[in-house]
Amino acid sequence: MDGHTRPLSVDEALRCVLEQTAAAPAEALPLASALGLTLAEDVVSDVDSPPYDKAMMDGYAVRGADLLDGRGDLEVVQEITAGRVPTLPVGPGQAARIMTGAPLPDGADAVVMVERTRLLEDGRVRVEGSPTRAGQHILKRGAELRAGETVLTAGVRLRPQDVGLLAAVGRDPVAAVPPPHVSLLATGDELVEPGVRPAAGQIRNSNGPMLLAQTRRGGGVPRYLGIAADHEDSLRPLIEQGLRTPVLLLSGGVSAGKLDLVPGVLAGLGVRTHFHKVHMKPGKPLFFGSVRTAGGTTLVFGLPGNPVSSFVCFELFVRPALRRLRGLADAGPPVRRAALAEDFGHASDRPTYHPALLEEADGWKVRPVPWFGSPDLRGLGRANALAVLPPGDGGFRAGQVLSVIPLEEG
Amino acid sequence: MDGHTRPLSVDEALRCVLEQTAAAPAEALPLASALGLTLAEDVVSDVDSPPYDKAMMDGYAVRGADLLDGRGDLEVVQEITAGRVPTLPVGPGQAARIMTGAPLPDGADAVVMVERTRLLEDGRVRVEGSPTRAGQHILKRGAELRAGETVLTAGVRLRPQDVGLLAAVGRDPVAAVPPPHVSLLATGDELVEPGVRPAAGQIRNSNGPMLLAQTRRGGGVPRYLGIAADHEDSLRPLIEQGLRTPVLLLSGGVSAGKLDLVPGVLAGLGVRTHFHKVHMKPGKPLFFGSVRTAGGTTLVFGLPGNPVSSFVCFELFVRPALRRLRGLADAGPPVRRAALAEDFGHASDRPTYHPALLEEADGWKVRPVPWFGSPDLRGLGRANALAVLPPGDGGFRAGQVLSVIPLEEG
Repeated sequence: MDGHTRPLSVDEALRCVLEQTAAAPAEALPLASALGLTLAEDVVSDVDSPPYDKAMMDGYAVRGADLLDGRGDLEVVQEITAGRVPTLPVGPGQAARIMTGAPLPDGADAVVMVERTRLLEDGRVRVEGSPTRAGQHILKRGAELRAGETVLTAGVRLRPQDVGLLAAVGRDPVAAVPPPHVSLLATGDELVEPGVRPAAGQIRNSNGPMLLAQTRRGGGVPRYLGIAADHEDSLRPLIEQGLRTPVLLLSGGVSAGKLDLVPGVLAGLGVRTHFHKVHMKPGKPLFFGSVRTAGGTTLVFGLPGNPVSSFVCFELFVRPALRRLRGLADAGPPVRRAALAEDFGHASDRPTYHPALLEEADGWKVRPVPWFGSPDLRGLGRANALAVLPPGDGGFRAGQVLSVIPLEEG
Repeated sequence: MDGHTRPLSVDEALRCVLEQTAAAPAEALPLASALGLTLAEDVVSDVDSPPYDKAMMDGYAVRGADLLDGRGDLEVVQEITAGRVPTLPVGPGQAARIMTGAPLPDGADAVVMVERTRLLEDGRVRVEGSPTRAGQHILKRGAELRAGETVLTAGVRLRPQDVGLLAAVGRDPVAAVPPPHVSLLATGDELVEPGVRPAAGQIRNSNGPMLLAQTRRGGGVPRYLGIAADHEDSLRPLIEQGLRTPVLLLSGGVSAGKLDLVPGVLAGLGVRTHFHKVHMKPGKPLFFGSVRTAGGTTLVFGLPGNPVSSFVCFELFVRPALRRLRGLADAGPPVRRAALAEDFGHASDRPTYHPALLEEADGWKVRPVPWFGSPDLRGLGRANALAVLPPGDGGFRAGQVLSVIPLEEG
């Protein structure tokens, strides 16, 4: 895989990235932090739910046979609130006051809503209205879940309703794949942090905050290491630090020029190069390597310094790697087919990932937005998708169907 | 709006919630935490970007006129790296070694890639290949952004690419609407926390972790207050604590029964009831109130104790309120039209929000999943959407078009 002279195709490059990427080991994690993580165990219920025949209304637990014509006067033998255990059975001609969620007493087989009753002066309760059938306003023990039943299987990405189910069956903590930590290091003597006003020759580091946001959206936990200057003494300790997390993202410093020291420093730290060029636009000078560390394998992505190149390389390669690390079966990126909304002139010798608007209007339509290339973050800002334009010297016709990668919303 | 005797329709109830809900005041927030928040200012660039004519390749800055036939030998007068300012102009017959991202020196109007050059023994550089046109491999000052230009407008929900743009124009901190804090309080003597094995008569609190996850998905910052017992001494201090955040979610304790103390405690703390019933299934006994506090207004939702009722009420009412608090123009919930994939028998006197599978296959199709009602969290677990079934005593025919609320993925 050391073919870093010939540029790989996007598919080859993604395959190479995923070959180096395995799901992180599962851990026992607090349920409160499990949202969005991949479940790493088949989950079996340890309880019947509900654990008893449960009243679904406030009212009276009764024997349906006593109320075949819908009315009757019954002796009230006890009161049962949620969280209490009934102490007496309900015999013929008897009833128990009962609250929503409370266990039904033995003998009773139905609940009459309190709205259909009134207390008599002698302490009995009068039931009126339509006939009462057995099972009315009762949830039978085990109707939701039975002990021993599998309620969720390993591999599921946990949604709020799944978290609710895990809570119901006592899975706190729960075995899940933890989110990957991702180190971010910007490189370049010309960079200053966004809060600083650039002096002559300087520009602000826009990739750092953008990659941090993309990492969050991709389910990673970002750790920003700052800006490294263009010399080995600055780069080496920061890269060493970044290699301690499962993923290190470097921004800038990986094209072929004289000051692009990064590949040399990486090699010196044992990082094996898998590829260093991808046949795509923007994003051609993407570097990908890996190194075995004490904690496992660290993936190293050297992202191009131009912001749209960096953004696109993240979406095409880093996000799928994060999904794989998170234990998700489908690494992505997501692709949808959409018809060009209008003619579009474009020529390139490489497949182009062009900022575009994807919209659903009588099927899916895609419309490339004005964009002048890899430095043009504003063009990307007007887009909600990347249209994949095959290489060629001509243009594209309205109605032609393209692959489109939808971008996530805010 | 104190009409809590007649149940409101879902639309009336949502309108009532949103009438009580205003966007939180903007704050100056660190850019690193701005992802997903609503921008609260129009953002104008304070710089030209790039701030100078910038080299887009490693190579030599040249005068195109010297290389009209594509070749020539040029004197190298300086080396310019990114972050440095050129010290000399490039005269006729001269060139400057230049790195990607560095400022073009005066006099030069193009860059020749290093791959097209070689250094001669006398120190000059030989350029070979195709003709060099002015502007080649140069990004002109201000091509991306001009100082004074508006790059983003208030109201935008910030995506990673917007965060990149904000960084480029120095907006750190940035004026944005902070995420709303949401207190969660479960109520009920029968509840135990998920990590505990329930004794007789007890059940686990599944709504707490589920609402916490829904709050996160809805862009809120949850704060779990625990489980309150069914008496005023337990409820009152916890509710008082919860009223200190802009939103308080109560789970359970709001139906009409004897032990449902919550509405009384809320009234005692000055909470005004807006409604207490909604004409829907599940979720009928939803309580909504509000109170003015030192910090502004606190919205109080009393969610039904049955897990699917609680889930659905959150999606229909709480999530839109959170979106409005977050400053988003479209409160939702999102609704899509989809055709029933198959006949479906269902009768109810209320509109039913039925767990369903929504899929795109020759248009949008919806398929209700097996579900036996408000306690059935497993039924919800098989769904990715809620199908809105109008009231009626009959059934629904394959092909009939329904409103469907898609649920977010993990």
